[in-house]
Amino acid sequence: MNKIVRVDMSSQKISELPIPAQYSGLAGRGLTSAIVNDEVPPLCHALSAQNKLVIAPGLLSGTIAPCSGRLSVGAKSPLTGGIKESNAGGTASQKLAKLGIAALVVEGQAPRGTLWKLVITRNKLELLPAKDLTGANNYKVIEKLTKTYGEKASYITIGSAGERLMSAASVAVTDLENRPTRHAGRGGLGAVMGSKGLKAIVLDDNGAPPITIKDQGAFKAAAKKFAMALKEHAVTGKGLPTYGTNILTNIINEAGGFPTRNFSTGQFEDADKVSGEMQRETILKRGGVATHPCSHGCVIQCSRVYMDKNKKYLTKGPEYETVWANGPNCGINDLDVIAKLDRLYDDIGLDTIEMGATLAVLMEAGYIQFGDGAGAIGLIKEEVGKATPLGRVLGSGAAVTGQAFGVCRVPVVKRQALPAYDPRSIKGIGVTFATSPMGADHTAGYSITANVLNVGGRVDPLKPEGQVELSRNLQIATAAIDSTGLCLFVAFAVLDIPAAFEAVYEMINAQYGLVLGPDDVAALGKSVLKCEREFNKKAGFTAEDDRLPMFFETEKLPPHNAVFDVSHEALDSVHNY
Amino acid sequence: MNKIVRVDMSSQKISELPIPAQYSGLAGRGLTSAIVNDEVPPLCHALSAQNKLVIAPGLLSGTIAPCSGRLSVGAKSPLTGGIKESNAGGTASQKLAKLGIAALVVEGQAPRGTLWKLVITRNKLELLPAKDLTGANNYKVIEKLTKTYGEKASYITIGSAGERLMSAASVAVTDLENRPTRHAGRGGLGAVMGSKGLKAIVLDDNGAPPITIKDQGAFKAAAKKFAMALKEHAVTGKGLPTYGTNILTNIINEAGGFPTRNFSTGQFEDADKVSGEMQRETILKRGGVATHPCSHGCVIQCSRVYMDKNKKYLTKGPEYETVWANGPNCGINDLDVIAKLDRLYDDIGLDTIEMGATLAVLMEAGYIQFGDGAGAIGLIKEEVGKATPLGRVLGSGAAVTGQAFGVCRVPVVKRQALPAYDPRSIKGIGVTFATSPMGADHTAGYSITANVLNVGGRVDPLKPEGQVELSRNLQIATAAIDSTGLCLFVAFAVLDIPAAFEAVYEMINAQYGLVLGPDDVAALGKSVLKCEREFNKKAGFTAEDDRLPMFFETEKLPPHNAVFDVSHEALDSVHNY
Repeated sequence: MNKIVRVDMSSQKISELPIPAQYSGLAGRGLTSAIVNDEVPPLCHALSAQNKLVIAPGLLSGTIAPCSGRLSVGAKSPLTGGIKESNAGGTASQKLAKLGIAALVVEGQAPRGTLWKLVITRNKLELLPAKDLTGANNYKVIEKLTKTYGEKASYITIGSAGERLMSAASVAVTDLENRPTRHAGRGGLGAVMGSKGLKAIVLDDNGAPPITIKDQGAFKAAAKKFAMALKEHAVTGKGLPTYGTNILTNIINEAGGFPTRNFSTGQFEDADKVSGEMQRETILKRGGVATHPCSHGCVIQCSRVYMDKNKKYLTKGPEYETVWANGPNCGINDLDVIAKLDRLYDDIGLDTIEMGATLAVLMEAGYIQFGDGAGAIGLIKEEVGKATPLGRVLGSGAAVTGQAFGVCRVPVVKRQALPAYDPRSIKGIGVTFATSPMGADHTAGYSITANVLNVGGRVDPLKPEGQVELSRNLQIATAAIDSTGLCLFVAFAVLDIPAAFEAVYEMINAQYGLVLGPDDVAALGKSVLKCEREFNKKAGFTAEDDRLPMFFETEKLPPHNAVFDVSHEALDSVHNY
Repeated sequence: MNKIVRVDMSSQKISELPIPAQYSGLAGRGLTSAIVNDEVPPLCHALSAQNKLVIAPGLLSGTIAPCSGRLSVGAKSPLTGGIKESNAGGTASQKLAKLGIAALVVEGQAPRGTLWKLVITRNKLELLPAKDLTGANNYKVIEKLTKTYGEKASYITIGSAGERLMSAASVAVTDLENRPTRHAGRGGLGAVMGSKGLKAIVLDDNGAPPITIKDQGAFKAAAKKFAMALKEHAVTGKGLPTYGTNILTNIINEAGGFPTRNFSTGQFEDADKVSGEMQRETILKRGGVATHPCSHGCVIQCSRVYMDKNKKYLTKGPEYETVWANGPNCGINDLDVIAKLDRLYDDIGLDTIEMGATLAVLMEAGYIQFGDGAGAIGLIKEEVGKATPLGRVLGSGAAVTGQAFGVCRVPVVKRQALPAYDPRSIKGIGVTFATSPMGADHTAGYSITANVLNVGGRVDPLKPEGQVELSRNLQIATAAIDSTGLCLFVAFAVLDIPAAFEAVYEMINAQYGLVLGPDDVAALGKSVLKCEREFNKKAGFTAEDDRLPMFFETEKLPPHNAVFDVSHEALDSVHNY
């Protein structure tokens, strides 16, 4: 990875430039956030020509490092108005890295009414008209593109939601079966791609040389050590492979922090009907795949393949957050309904968390009833999918939907919907939701580790004490991990097994000829967060944006009857480092 | 005015309390903003029980002071998220003052599904069920209420938009003919009233004693001096009485600052078809009233009565801002279309500025075409009036509509739509739009005076120099005037005729036995602005919220090909006093 590729959509000119010195050592989230902070006017409209979409593989992407296939996508977010990095699995990150591209920077705006695809091969970078893909959803887009570019290429695409500039639109990345199931979902980055007039990016690394590794021996040794640690840890070696991320449904429900019917109670009476255990049973019964990687070199394999009742492929195994958002959070207890919604989201190109939260807000408004699965599917398919006015409201996310329908209880921070953990019963994650520069985002500092799973220590989830430190350390570690291309799930092992943590910087050192240690990892994480907070400050964010909606502080959540009582002062100390 | 009346909608309890010492000398906007700042949690949801709706007459309301009938309505705004004071003419302010009520504070929230009316007479304060008014629009509400409470009472009401919690909903006040034509339009205060479960306030001052005046002789002399100055000044004595506020269409169009088709050019080719001159001709031809007061004791009489083609009453004469927003800003050149929209807005209870700006944003999205008057009427009547999903989007204002439809050029500051002056060609008003704590609001510091009308001096509208001082002084003066109950239009005389300014504090001194001078007026204005900015700061507003949308800084506006080039640094100095 020795170059930055700039694609000016206004002029359709593409340029390749060496990585500037100030970005040395940055990749993934670290690089997308640095470029966005340096180049995007903080007060620009997120869908204007002034915004930039930055796509970057991680430091270790394209190597044999286990679980190093994450792709970072960054921009000013049309949903939050702040800086955004959202990352996805799939195969694109590894291909971009092998093609030597540290970052793709998509700039400007194509002439109105034109649509383009960017085709990158070993020897060529081309921007080609993609009028035939106008209005197409992701599965259709991939079907068409593979006819021209083959099954071995990777595809980064947007569905109709991104083209239609919806604030909940995602950027889709193809998986190992060339299905558009892995998404940079959060923050509406698909709308930024759509606003540029860019429908698809084709990555063909055929003939590209392997990634340069300075010390092959050391690299292989560290990678092996890392893989062993991932296999050894109960979560990454057993829980996630067996049940996928949805192993969490029963666990979080048991903890009383499972937001049900738009965050009105912390336990769902039918949790067992949508649990990871039930999902595994269903998948196996129908001939699906219960343990499955989403990118090359994954040893955790938490992905799955979900079949419909007729044993035909329907979608990937819906993730825990998807199951929760579109299931219990909407009072829905049917895995097939959730899977159908998941398929629609992947196809139309939408953030499953934002959309589930939005449906729940609409249900709170009484537009349809909690538990109405057919109604939910109809809304996504017929309204959002067809971009009716109602569909456009829903596609704009929970905050807009709440405002349009006069709902007060809207679970968003920085206008981004809260994921699947009630911050009243699991307070550490509430600190992350409130203070992450990304808006409410569980992946930004996953305190469920110590709050619930007893990974990396133990912090009582119901007490305000200790949550700030927990969230701070995790936010710092996460910002670093998100820069490596490693899947965040490696954190379970990294937090508990010293060898796993060592292996991370040993791999980086071996690849780049560096001598980084633990302190350097923390320093990287801090610098990424500082850069992101700097952008947000310039965009008008203050400490008052680092707050949960007031109802979390005043409405008690059953069964613990807890409120979120980490003080504002404490929240303001999270980023003191 | 010796008491504050608190209405707790949660318990339906009403209490009367003496005015606390810290509010001594405050009334109108000064009092609503102080109470909101002191009592409303800045981060609460604006439609939650924690918000408060505060309604207050001005210092001089209820007296014979000319043009002293303005009523201030305040709350945390569901549109901007900041503090809001919006004031209206009509007859309610004078009645509230005569009933001795310095402020009505509506608190809490009525039980879901219940609707109430507050009936205030000389001896009684009653909260009564108003189920029969559910879903009714303002004209129907007034028709029903007058059957019970008579033609002599004043009514403060919300239409269906307020009940349905739309962010552009207004609070309507009846005029001298008992029509709901005067609105506290901006910032969605009707939705706050609706969220409380309060449909109407009936004010019957029958038998109430006159306002206490400490020095009757001095008061009468000052009031006479004031009236004479208003009659003498060309704007208040001739321009406004003859042509109404719509006298501005030709003037602002001539100045090249008349925002046309969603702020894409500064002159409208058919301005003469919707001008004040044409409006006057149309009104007179159809037997309307071309010079007409909106409240007792008005000597300016800029209001009018507009008849339809069949010479039947249609609506009040649409004001300049209404004509612009729903006319040229939407490419519409038909006064009858504009009048029909005005009638719908008054009836449904909507801000005419926000709605016109919203229609233009929707037109920019291509949903209907610029110039489509029938389409615009249909959208307001069938969609907003019936609260369809599209109607709910539009009723949420321009910012939400822009987000839902993916429009980048959305003319809002602090999420409130810009009024009828393009800040690129008239830069002083741009400073006010950017820096007023109210969001974009021409009445907050009406620089058109010196920028265009040569009132109170002359500042070249096209140069950045001098605009900050102009806007600062006007914002301070306005905050003071908005506290007196005086109509802002007295400012034309006050700025040019020393006797008019003297008369303002002489009337207050005579009424209250005070010895205020010019410095006290400025001090009052500054303290009001400081209080409002304090609230906004606590609600998360920063200097970055004191900015115009970026396209005003980058897109040149014909015919002057001007951009808004008052520096951010200069904007940040506006509130240095």
